[in-house]
Amino acid sequence: MKIAILGTGVVGQTHAEKLGALGHEVMMGTRNVDKVLSGKGPDQFGRPSFGEWYRHQTGIKLSLFNEAAAFGEFIIIATHGMITLEALELAGKENMKNKVLLDISNPLNFSKGMPPTLSVCNTDSLGEQIQRAFPESKVVKSLNTLNAYVQVTPEVVPGDHTIFMSGNDAEAKLKTKALLNSYGWKNENIIDLGDITTARGTEQLLPLWVRLLGVLHHGNFNIHVVQGNAPKR
Amino acid sequence: MKIAILGTGVVGQTHAEKLGALGHEVMMGTRNVDKVLSGKGPDQFGRPSFGEWYRHQTGIKLSLFNEAAAFGEFIIIATHGMITLEALELAGKENMKNKVLLDISNPLNFSKGMPPTLSVCNTDSLGEQIQRAFPESKVVKSLNTLNAYVQVTPEVVPGDHTIFMSGNDAEAKLKTKALLNSYGWKNENIIDLGDITTARGTEQLLPLWVRLLGVLHHGNFNIHVVQGNAPKR
Repeated sequence: MKIAILGTGVVGQTHAEKLGALGHEVMMGTRNVDKVLSGKGPDQFGRPSFGEWYRHQTGIKLSLFNEAAAFGEFIIIATHGMITLEALELAGKENMKNKVLLDISNPLNFSKGMPPTLSVCNTDSLGEQIQRAFPESKVVKSLNTLNAYVQVTPEVVPGDHTIFMSGNDAEAKLKTKALLNSYGWKNENIIDLGDITTARGTEQLLPLWVRLLGVLHHGNFNIHVVQGNAPKR
Repeated sequence: MKIAILGTGVVGQTHAEKLGALGHEVMMGTRNVDKVLSGKGPDQFGRPSFGEWYRHQTGIKLSLFNEAAAFGEFIIIATHGMITLEALELAGKENMKNKVLLDISNPLNFSKGMPPTLSVCNTDSLGEQIQRAFPESKVVKSLNTLNAYVQVTPEVVPGDHTIFMSGNDAEAKLKTKALLNSYGWKNENIIDLGDITTARGTEQLLPLWVRLLGVLHHGNFNIHVVQGNAPKR
């Protein structure tokens, strides 16, 4: 499948590598190709620059947001949540029409330091904002509740653990589920929470996630929803 | 131990029964004793009235908020989150001085229907509001991320699953941990997230919790934090 990844950060890179390995045609989209290729590394987390990473990839295309969106039959939103809506405007409404927009981004505001706060929450969510701004696209919110490596390599966390999905379109959720399966997520660990308003629930998990990161000192963790029997009536 | 429970709803009742069975002296606190005893049941969830429930209990005392707070060496806040601060004002600052306030309440606003929203979140939490309003008490936020029955009967959900704790005072958290242990929570499943500001994380889990309740159709579930190995550097 032709897959567009909007965003060139660690989330975009991680998905691009995995999707390339799975045999998909991948085009990453960015605001300024020259700028992203010439950025210097390593970054604050010790990761190489995008350009250095990209030189080691084969077959992953890189282009502007709008060209990537036009290329992709399936579009993954891997931008920083604070610029997601702006990036999607640049990607172009027509280029995303009738396509699945798998939104992994979280509206985390780091401008006031750590831990970040959410720039939208409680009575709205970024997932809903995207769906309202692009009504002819099919937004599915998923994978936003854990770090990029675990998103595409769930087996790095042992045993069963849960991934959530929110969206208005049943077919778009089926396509997303197939992608999740190809990453290694088992059907019994995928919980469809309902329509896109349920993204409020998963985006608001991030304030707990960042604090767990602080306690556990690494990002290779996830939550598992564990059920007992329903109470007798 | 002499334990006060502020609030006579299902959370208060569930803890009162459990603590009574564990051999503690329990006094429940309410705003108006006559009114709560004369209320008619069953409620919207088919539960008997408080008065009917209370007539089947032995040894559980019932009094005003302030008398209960004065009685308790350890105080459990089991009110509806929207009236917690008001109830604590009635309980009286002096009656709660130097005592642990175990806050189970969540600031859920049901006034606009289901699902509820949070009346405080993101940049503040109810746990912090209580600690600021009662600086000479020791607020610990815990048990607010799951339903009352699972709170006191963790074994109803099979296997390991996680309970969180937030608070500024180490000794108060030790006392809370001992209470959690007596309810059946194993040490390895108790995660101390840090100071009381981390209550923002657990209170904001509620929007996901209510949506999981909608999908699973019962409240006998919890989340388990599952860890992989830390990534190699």
